[in-house]
Amino acid sequence: MYTMALSERSKYAFNPIDEDNELAERIVKSGKKVIQLNRGDISLYFPTPKYIEDAYVKAIRENRTSYTRSSGIPELIDAVRGRYKRMFNLNLKEEDIITTQGVSEGLYFLNASLLNPGNHAIIFRPYYTQYIPNIELAGGKAYYLDYDEKKEWDIDTDELENHIKRMKKKRGIKYIMITNPNNPTGTVLGRGTLEKIVDLANEHKLILVSDEIYDEIVYNGAKFTSISQLAKGVPHVILNGASKNLDATGFRIGFMIVPGEDRVSMELKRKFADFASVRVSVNAPAQYAIAEAIRNVKEHKKAIGYMVREIEDRVNFAVKRLGENPYLEMVRPNSAYYILPRIDLKSLNYKSDKEFVDELLRSKLVQITRGSGFGAKSHIRIVALPDKQTLGEAINRLNEFCMKRSGR
Amino acid sequence: MYTMALSERSKYAFNPIDEDNELAERIVKSGKKVIQLNRGDISLYFPTPKYIEDAYVKAIRENRTSYTRSSGIPELIDAVRGRYKRMFNLNLKEEDIITTQGVSEGLYFLNASLLNPGNHAIIFRPYYTQYIPNIELAGGKAYYLDYDEKKEWDIDTDELENHIKRMKKKRGIKYIMITNPNNPTGTVLGRGTLEKIVDLANEHKLILVSDEIYDEIVYNGAKFTSISQLAKGVPHVILNGASKNLDATGFRIGFMIVPGEDRVSMELKRKFADFASVRVSVNAPAQYAIAEAIRNVKEHKKAIGYMVREIEDRVNFAVKRLGENPYLEMVRPNSAYYILPRIDLKSLNYKSDKEFVDELLRSKLVQITRGSGFGAKSHIRIVALPDKQTLGEAINRLNEFCMKRSGR
Repeated sequence: MYTMALSERSKYAFNPIDEDNELAERIVKSGKKVIQLNRGDISLYFPTPKYIEDAYVKAIRENRTSYTRSSGIPELIDAVRGRYKRMFNLNLKEEDIITTQGVSEGLYFLNASLLNPGNHAIIFRPYYTQYIPNIELAGGKAYYLDYDEKKEWDIDTDELENHIKRMKKKRGIKYIMITNPNNPTGTVLGRGTLEKIVDLANEHKLILVSDEIYDEIVYNGAKFTSISQLAKGVPHVILNGASKNLDATGFRIGFMIVPGEDRVSMELKRKFADFASVRVSVNAPAQYAIAEAIRNVKEHKKAIGYMVREIEDRVNFAVKRLGENPYLEMVRPNSAYYILPRIDLKSLNYKSDKEFVDELLRSKLVQITRGSGFGAKSHIRIVALPDKQTLGEAINRLNEFCMKRSGR
Repeated sequence: MYTMALSERSKYAFNPIDEDNELAERIVKSGKKVIQLNRGDISLYFPTPKYIEDAYVKAIRENRTSYTRSSGIPELIDAVRGRYKRMFNLNLKEEDIITTQGVSEGLYFLNASLLNPGNHAIIFRPYYTQYIPNIELAGGKAYYLDYDEKKEWDIDTDELENHIKRMKKKRGIKYIMITNPNNPTGTVLGRGTLEKIVDLANEHKLILVSDEIYDEIVYNGAKFTSISQLAKGVPHVILNGASKNLDATGFRIGFMIVPGEDRVSMELKRKFADFASVRVSVNAPAQYAIAEAIRNVKEHKKAIGYMVREIEDRVNFAVKRLGENPYLEMVRPNSAYYILPRIDLKSLNYKSDKEFVDELLRSKLVQITRGSGFGAKSHIRIVALPDKQTLGEAINRLNEFCMKRSGR
């Protein structure tokens, strides 16, 4: 007999949202058409801009198809340095930037570099799903706090401070993770909140990690502040990449940025580079394409400008139509492209958001994502990327579904 | 004060061969031209075939730039199934194949899925460098055995059996790794040896892992046997990919193949798919390109035929010229494109292969790799991919270097 084949840790390799697709796949296979408001894949709805595709094609035609430096080609690193100078007046050095295979790989490098078994990372709910398996695969645990829905999903920094003080003695805390702008809430954290978080990290000697992958998809008058603008002298890591702002999800190009010069930051950037060397290289021609995508400021401005206007319009339209449903209550997003309404499950007589979402899919052929997949039970996540006609039709069905269920 | 920032495991994130490049980079920066016989990057020397680049460009132009199924697009999975049917008469099912970001990612999935702290994997020296950090990052340890240089780098299966018996009681052994064809020795394991290894794995209930990334780069009359042809009923994993056979190193497309139907194989393939779901997706257009690269048998035959003839010619040329050096002794390779001579360090009065390699680089501007990076001290690895003129010039310098040192 073989002993147990799998490792202990392997039980944490798990994508809770992926599992939910099985029902949808069965329905589609039976020949029915499902409206999907569950796919946060911007390049499905907005084709990758032509100037980026041209640069990708050029790289292939020039035979840029061999391995590259493991932390990324110099052209790409330079382009990222230019971006941070332009947007945040930040002077990054070459060694501050590690190219990754999407933010997913950045999460692996981060947690594998930092966490010993039993260590904790502070994670605010609702969270981006993939944070959790990456923490747990490294033997760590998420210490959950909550974004405050009543305060437009802001962080209650007094509560954060209390928790840090209380748990500091008991358990190792390695880092505080924030997602700004946020998936799935669509919130942009204010400068005041960020300043308090930086102070707390500094006082209690915790590393700050800010996932800023949506940092250019900001609207409704909101203003984005990068943690890198405030955290000078405090060790911090920024996760970013090409997927959202550059509308290139399938390229799998991400960045880890460690701007600090302090001892901890120096250790981190060297170690992330070591992890990169273990996996040899990132897709070569995609790196050239993204270097051009970032460098060509004029074309990028056009592309992102159009995209953000469209997204703002679609999100606001969807929020308005969802607002007509008396069983939903939501904070209006001002970034990314997700809406996270709270559902009045009790009035609708559903036991869980999962049951609600599955039943909506079965009876109305509309697929959305259960909030519990993001640590936000009694919520649903709606992706507002499809055009308004599709969105309108899907929300009609959702609203009808609730009305019928309640008997109104 | 921040506590120690990095995790315990992070010390294992380390690429020993990468480190050696620093000296070479300094020399190149000083304006000197170095002949590199250290880069196993086939696409640097043989441009990726045009039909593959065309398919890549087509995928981009058709906007195949969004996320894909995490275990790979159906077109690619089908192509891989077709390949294994064609080459080895193997009937793979869709779920037997997981697309990875190069074999590197396959090594991560493999070790993270299998190893608990303290578990062992049997690794034969000389080994492909990246096996080791991946084992150690998962908390495991390599249990080293040696390919037998005196028997043309074959595996001594009696010795293997003795070691398995001896250590089985003491420590957990999860898998036996073989590299066939081998980097860095260029050996193809014979069918008889493979049969014995399969029997041992079966008898002692160990998982077999075969890295077969060079399985079409075989020459000098050698015949390759895939472990999948012999290990029916014995749980085994094949690592393969597009980098070498399809001359597409920078695409980062690998495969993990688990053909078995037994309980262990079923657990493994499901878990590898779970790991894939945690990192979301592999580069999308590269998957379409590789699907076409595998499917287009006619073009592939032309491309691989030319490449293997050229490699055979260059390797045999280099072996002949290296054979003129009385301080080197080597087994003639019949696969891949590496030559691994043993150096008579004593006669040359060098303390280590590292010292030899560094001194050759400094004084003759020829970069090769120290064998100790692959667990083969007193050896050097030479990549025979450059054209014969370059190879000849580099080997002249190497031979002169030895002659001068010895005073002959």
